Amino acid sequence: MHMADKARGLWKTPAIEVLRARPGQRIAELDCGSTPGFVGGKSDGLALFEERGTVLSSLQEKLYANGRSGDSRSVLLVLQGMDTAGKGGMVRHVIGHVDPQGVDHASFGVPTPEEKGHHFLWRIDKALPRGGQLGVFDRSHYEDVLVVRVHDLVPEEIWSGRYDEINQFEKELVAGGTTLVKVAMFVSLDEQKSRLLERLERRDKYWKYNPSDVDERRLWPAYQDAYQAMLDETSTDYAPWYVVPCDRKWYSRIAVTELLIDALEKLDLDWPPAAFDIEAEKRRLAES
Amino acid sequence: MHMADKARGLWKTPAIEVLRARPGQRIAELDCGSTPGFVGGKSDGLALFEERGTVLSSLQEKLYANGRSGDSRSVLLVLQGMDTAGKGGMVRHVIGHVDPQGVDHASFGVPTPEEKGHHFLWRIDKALPRGGQLGVFDRSHYEDVLVVRVHDLVPEEIWSGRYDEINQFEKELVAGGTTLVKVAMFVSLDEQKSRLLERLERRDKYWKYNPSDVDERRLWPAYQDAYQAMLDETSTDYAPWYVVPCDRKWYSRIAVTELLIDALEKLDLDWPPAAFDIEAEKRRLAES
Repeated sequence: MHMADKARGLWKTPAIEVLRARPGQRIAELDCGSTPGFVGGKSDGLALFEERGTVLSSLQEKLYANGRSGDSRSVLLVLQGMDTAGKGGMVRHVIGHVDPQGVDHASFGVPTPEEKGHHFLWRIDKALPRGGQLGVFDRSHYEDVLVVRVHDLVPEEIWSGRYDEINQFEKELVAGGTTLVKVAMFVSLDEQKSRLLERLERRDKYWKYNPSDVDERRLWPAYQDAYQAMLDETSTDYAPWYVVPCDRKWYSRIAVTELLIDALEKLDLDWPPAAFDIEAEKRRLAES
Repeated sequence: MHMADKARGLWKTPAIEVLRARPGQRIAELDCGSTPGFVGGKSDGLALFEERGTVLSSLQEKLYANGRSGDSRSVLLVLQGMDTAGKGGMVRHVIGHVDPQGVDHASFGVPTPEEKGHHFLWRIDKALPRGGQLGVFDRSHYEDVLVVRVHDLVPEEIWSGRYDEINQFEKELVAGGTTLVKVAMFVSLDEQKSRLLERLERRDKYWKYNPSDVDERRLWPAYQDAYQAMLDETSTDYAPWYVVPCDRKWYSRIAVTELLIDALEKLDLDWPPAAFDIEAEKRRLAES
């Protein structure tokens, strides 16, 4: 048996089931080093990653083909997580498997002055994937109930209303044909420390380090509360959250690959039919 | 000797030299099946492609790192070519080597009603790469002196002025820190016929076929004139064109990979220095 085939069988519970946010689940109790549903080790995971990356790429090509043929459906991967959780690596490695033409990538940092002058969903709306595209949000509208809440950037009566706003916004997105894959990435405080230290020890990583990352670590309990509320308030039937332990990068990447594959498979995509008379075109081409 | 090392030595003249558009060069005389500068075969080319893709990826990461640290420089790959020349495959395979986060991709088809209401450079300007990004244009502002000229979509006194407008526009882009890599991709009429036929014979390729492609074939002499004028008028010292024969996809892909590597190497990028006190941050981190 090929190693990747073997590894595939090591998913004892599909990622889509085992990682889905559950009512009553406590983030504070999550083991960030665990590998839910997957009973294999790192080498199994890495072998599987390449195999499933190819599957993801094929499915994405079909989505793109349908988009080019007028299908308005899209898939949007939303990545939320503390610094060093591995959002960037997720994009580089998981999304790196698919055709760049079919990817609409956006990252959301501190709002610009222009963005601040608008409703918090304004910049999100502008970055939504077009039909046939795989959208990727590195951070998202959820910043407005996470960092904004933790740092009191707006009054509580404002941010507390945003959960409902977000749910309504996402309901409309889904109704419009966008499948949301919302991934909450959790890294342990210890692993975060070690990843930050690496950024301080390697000159090719200094650019990834920001002194405010250490300040944010001190606010971890407040962030945990904010993430907990986010999951409790915005994990809906139409746009559920997936809770992904991220201390083992190989695991988080195979997990998100599976979530995307599942989302694409559910679209039940086929190649678009010919919108022309094939035999007539063959004749025209032969004469040209 | 490793196969890729051997293959690398098979570039007898660097792509950046041998492919650069030359005054007086006649497109009508180009051998689209040739492999200028490269004396190896397909297997050499494929081995080299993987090795050099990794080099490209490393250089792009440095560009991205610098962009994140405030460097406003960027690189913009402009792909122009007739249908089936392989623009999409170029993006998928060459740009597929780099981190999707660092890519600003845009494709330019028939202008939308909104775009038609603006100057032809309006939609281009909006899609320019941000600092640190590798921009990719699948078609570009050159459509406005190619298809527009061939189909008389605007009067000659309008399109004939656009060469100067484009040169001025690109001069400003370059002055602003964007390195332009303009690639004119040429496929022979025979190879185009065979690629179009494949799209009519494979149901996973129907979506790539458009009956107008055959109509455009009949206009090939007019397109050759338009491409010739484009090269003659807009291959400048600051933004030269590269003329890439594309009947052999493996060749065109290694060639464009080399052009991009050369553009990035000329930026002489290093990792951004730490913008903080490293030892002080290590202490703060240890205490956090």
